[in-house]
Amino acid sequence: MVNSDVQLLIHGKNIADFDVLIPNKNVELKSVNKVANKNYLFLNLTISKNATPGNVIIKFTKGKESFKYVYELKPKPQRAQNGQAVTSEDVIYLITPDRFANGDITNDSTDDTLEKVDRYNENGRHGGDLQGVLDNLAYIEELGATTIWLNPVLENDQPAYSYHGYGISDFYKTDTRFGTNEDYKKIVDVSHKKGMKVIMDQVFNHCGSGHWWMNDLPSKDWLNQWDTFTRSNFTNIASSDPYVSSDDYELLTRGWFDKNLPDLNLENTFLETYMIQNSIWWVTYAGIDGIRLDTYPYPNKHAMSKWMKALTAEYPGFYMVAETWAERASYLSYWNNDKPNRDGYTPHVSSISDYALYYSIIRAFGKDGDVSELYKTLAEDFVYGNAANNKVFNGNHDVDRLLALLDENVDKLKLSMVFTLTTRGIPQIYYGDEILMKNKRPDGKVRQDFPGGWKNDKRNAFTKEGRTVEEEAVFNYIKTILNWRKTASSIHNGKLTHYQPRDNVYVYFRYTETENTMIIINNSNKNYNDFDLKRFEKSLKGYNGGKDIINDKLIDNLDHIAISKNSALIIELTK
Amino acid sequence: MVNSDVQLLIHGKNIADFDVLIPNKNVELKSVNKVANKNYLFLNLTISKNATPGNVIIKFTKGKESFKYVYELKPKPQRAQNGQAVTSEDVIYLITPDRFANGDITNDSTDDTLEKVDRYNENGRHGGDLQGVLDNLAYIEELGATTIWLNPVLENDQPAYSYHGYGISDFYKTDTRFGTNEDYKKIVDVSHKKGMKVIMDQVFNHCGSGHWWMNDLPSKDWLNQWDTFTRSNFTNIASSDPYVSSDDYELLTRGWFDKNLPDLNLENTFLETYMIQNSIWWVTYAGIDGIRLDTYPYPNKHAMSKWMKALTAEYPGFYMVAETWAERASYLSYWNNDKPNRDGYTPHVSSISDYALYYSIIRAFGKDGDVSELYKTLAEDFVYGNAANNKVFNGNHDVDRLLALLDENVDKLKLSMVFTLTTRGIPQIYYGDEILMKNKRPDGKVRQDFPGGWKNDKRNAFTKEGRTVEEEAVFNYIKTILNWRKTASSIHNGKLTHYQPRDNVYVYFRYTETENTMIIINNSNKNYNDFDLKRFEKSLKGYNGGKDIINDKLIDNLDHIAISKNSALIIELTK
Repeated sequence: MVNSDVQLLIHGKNIADFDVLIPNKNVELKSVNKVANKNYLFLNLTISKNATPGNVIIKFTKGKESFKYVYELKPKPQRAQNGQAVTSEDVIYLITPDRFANGDITNDSTDDTLEKVDRYNENGRHGGDLQGVLDNLAYIEELGATTIWLNPVLENDQPAYSYHGYGISDFYKTDTRFGTNEDYKKIVDVSHKKGMKVIMDQVFNHCGSGHWWMNDLPSKDWLNQWDTFTRSNFTNIASSDPYVSSDDYELLTRGWFDKNLPDLNLENTFLETYMIQNSIWWVTYAGIDGIRLDTYPYPNKHAMSKWMKALTAEYPGFYMVAETWAERASYLSYWNNDKPNRDGYTPHVSSISDYALYYSIIRAFGKDGDVSELYKTLAEDFVYGNAANNKVFNGNHDVDRLLALLDENVDKLKLSMVFTLTTRGIPQIYYGDEILMKNKRPDGKVRQDFPGGWKNDKRNAFTKEGRTVEEEAVFNYIKTILNWRKTASSIHNGKLTHYQPRDNVYVYFRYTETENTMIIINNSNKNYNDFDLKRFEKSLKGYNGGKDIINDKLIDNLDHIAISKNSALIIELTK
Repeated sequence: MVNSDVQLLIHGKNIADFDVLIPNKNVELKSVNKVANKNYLFLNLTISKNATPGNVIIKFTKGKESFKYVYELKPKPQRAQNGQAVTSEDVIYLITPDRFANGDITNDSTDDTLEKVDRYNENGRHGGDLQGVLDNLAYIEELGATTIWLNPVLENDQPAYSYHGYGISDFYKTDTRFGTNEDYKKIVDVSHKKGMKVIMDQVFNHCGSGHWWMNDLPSKDWLNQWDTFTRSNFTNIASSDPYVSSDDYELLTRGWFDKNLPDLNLENTFLETYMIQNSIWWVTYAGIDGIRLDTYPYPNKHAMSKWMKALTAEYPGFYMVAETWAERASYLSYWNNDKPNRDGYTPHVSSISDYALYYSIIRAFGKDGDVSELYKTLAEDFVYGNAANNKVFNGNHDVDRLLALLDENVDKLKLSMVFTLTTRGIPQIYYGDEILMKNKRPDGKVRQDFPGGWKNDKRNAFTKEGRTVEEEAVFNYIKTILNWRKTASSIHNGKLTHYQPRDNVYVYFRYTETENTMIIINNSNKNYNDFDLKRFEKSLKGYNGGKDIINDKLIDNLDHIAISKNSALIIELTK
């Protein structure tokens, strides 16, 4: 590792009364920290560059009493070739593991966890697991997504409402109802073999009330404590607001997400170190390709920035996408900045979740929407350090299903997919939108079981036979674009030139020196037999035809083009 | 002058055939430029630091033919002490001169201009003039504004629709229907004596079709020419859009505002120099304190930036406020940047028109509005180089009257005034809003005649007696705040801390080391007998009372406070 220091948290009855010795020439015990609670010690080790994998003995002594702990130095795994970063060549498929597929019915309920399976409870555990994801990687591969992001799979040993994964009770252990750490690593390995990548969801803001340390906190300030339960204001923007009151800032950063989600205090440097080491451990152990940073603006932002720096020091170019749930590009720009902000804060985040564009997509393709929304939001991109790295999405686990928000209009869902998959940035879609899931919140309903993910399901939508005609049409529509996109360098790295929409038609070009793709999104109710392309002649110069990617047709006229109402064309231009 | 070079535009029949000589040891003719049209010469002079005021002879010779032109070097006027900049200590009162007051009925129509007075035509000239402004400076002073901004008063010799002033036909000459250059200078001088300031409206994007050069253009590229009349797309944001198509950019920057407003091509360096010199000439001649830069994003932005640099070189710290009609803070931030933008462009503008906040004001205080709009927009301020210099306004000559936009609710108008006058930035209000003008567009209706500005008006709202009870109440309300604001250092230069609004009540503090002002805007329909101030205790720490500025009452309790629905309190806190 670049950073050869490691801090061990030692937990044991009155452990602070013990002296510690590490008789190892390559592992130096530099110092020992004690905290308020005598059941904790923090050991600061430096691992020599000469250290080799193997066991390290840690000796604890108190008078005549003594014992040893065997701490294993493991070999550092080689990172897979393609496991270096998620880029705009990728498309991310977000999965809520409990609701995707139940690949192993033996772990639906487990002895070491409280909440048992109950598929009939919308807020209960439905039995989906890592084996289910593994079993259906081929489905995702067929669809054409290149990267999976799983909602958290670490242990959530909560009495109820634990399926979502955000109430982590052990940051080093996969929930047994999902599988094992090895299963998680297996998904990464198999994905890499397929040329696919994996993003892990990491949560620094809070843990679950079932976390083992809740019964014996290292110090009171391990958590953000309040006299009475105090909920966060959820005001993401308070963290970047130059005029923020301490009241609002405290509520955002120290208020709790929920009663069963204790708010971690990253200003406690022992906890901060614990979390950062945990994050780096997962990257190193499992070989993941990116991290999705939950609730990025909520904890102390300087601690978050330190995390990003530490990760990047070990893994330069690593993909870290922050959840930045704020609706304006300006707000988001605070977190996507290659330079310090004016207040001196540098986030060091490589990618932000582009909620500004998300809301524009919903407005544009929603009832009576206009594609000018997209144009106007992209025109703000100069505020970002690197907008090309923004994660562009049209759905996730926290909002109503895309189809519901688009007034159940399937044509509009298709248009939203064309835009999401061809504009600048790194696209992300949500599992099941490709087969027209359409529930509205509450959350439990949005995170629907994927039909066929359970053995006794009436149909299996992972297969062509199990999809309705309409689902199959949309599935194929998205599949066509995604599979074409895999090698479309103009979409990956091309520049973007767009034309101000007129009459609810949006035309833009993605182009490199050698490739030029024209996208036409007709979001209007007007059929054009001969949509005039003269306005775009500068972008079309040198080209005389093209290939319509969606309909697999050749186009030999770039003067006019036919485009039906509420439809889109992706045209790879040819000379 | 810092820049000792000056370029003279010489216009005369076949003048390019003449040789030019300047026999003056302190004025060097460095070079002569010819252009396509032989009726023009551009002389490049350098004025020596040793030059003294007086006449300079310019000799034109062609064979035996010769003549002289006497060019006067005038003494450079001293700038008035208070005429250095407009700052957040000021409040700007915008006047449309044709519609404010007719101080001189002898110039309602003039021999040297085409359009004659017609007060019954909403798009016609009504006769308002500089004398009318001068006559009513005391009214503005009484109201408490410290700065006036007049819509352009330079000659607009157009056959019709000339009253607004934006179709300039001579950049060096005040329209005779408004008065003379000397009258304009007099307004500045009298204002300065009163401790007031004057902002001039300057227009670089277009001239009037009645401009003398339109009959004999120096070169075709003096204007942005099109084969057929082509209107601007008015898409301000195209100028900063990183993905802009050349089509949209050309339409914005080269399209015409209107048929009678030829679009000036500032890429022509002779024209660019002419305009910059003209601007500096006005600052120097009239001693104005600031310039309002019309349609800033429309012309070539590099020329505009050069203008700003040239002005600042001569008059460091000069106030230049750009009209930046774009509704999002991100867009505006492109023009208010003390550092280069990411595309390398540095605007060098000292202040932008905060349209983002304007629209937030209208939404907040409009029907069913919420003050969260204000909070959310101010939270974006970190994108600006210097948001404290933003011009904050709640109306102008281009939009429906404030009262009309606020659903004719006078209480809401008062709230909008409290906010505009106490938040960060340099406030600007529009004449007549203080007496409840409430017309909607078209423009001619918004720019209503001020009652009493014309001798035969039925009433004179410049006087207490001429105002209705309701008008007088609002006038006094604004007057109270404005006159208090003149010495309120916490508002001028204080920091801002605001609290996320709850239940449509917005509380914020403006404070320096020595002064602390609490503003409470209750935008809800709820009357509070005892609005709880506990949440604000950190901002209130060390204070135990205050003075209610609006109602001139002492407050001796900072635990709770009474505040009626749709009302505001400005409380200067006391220890």
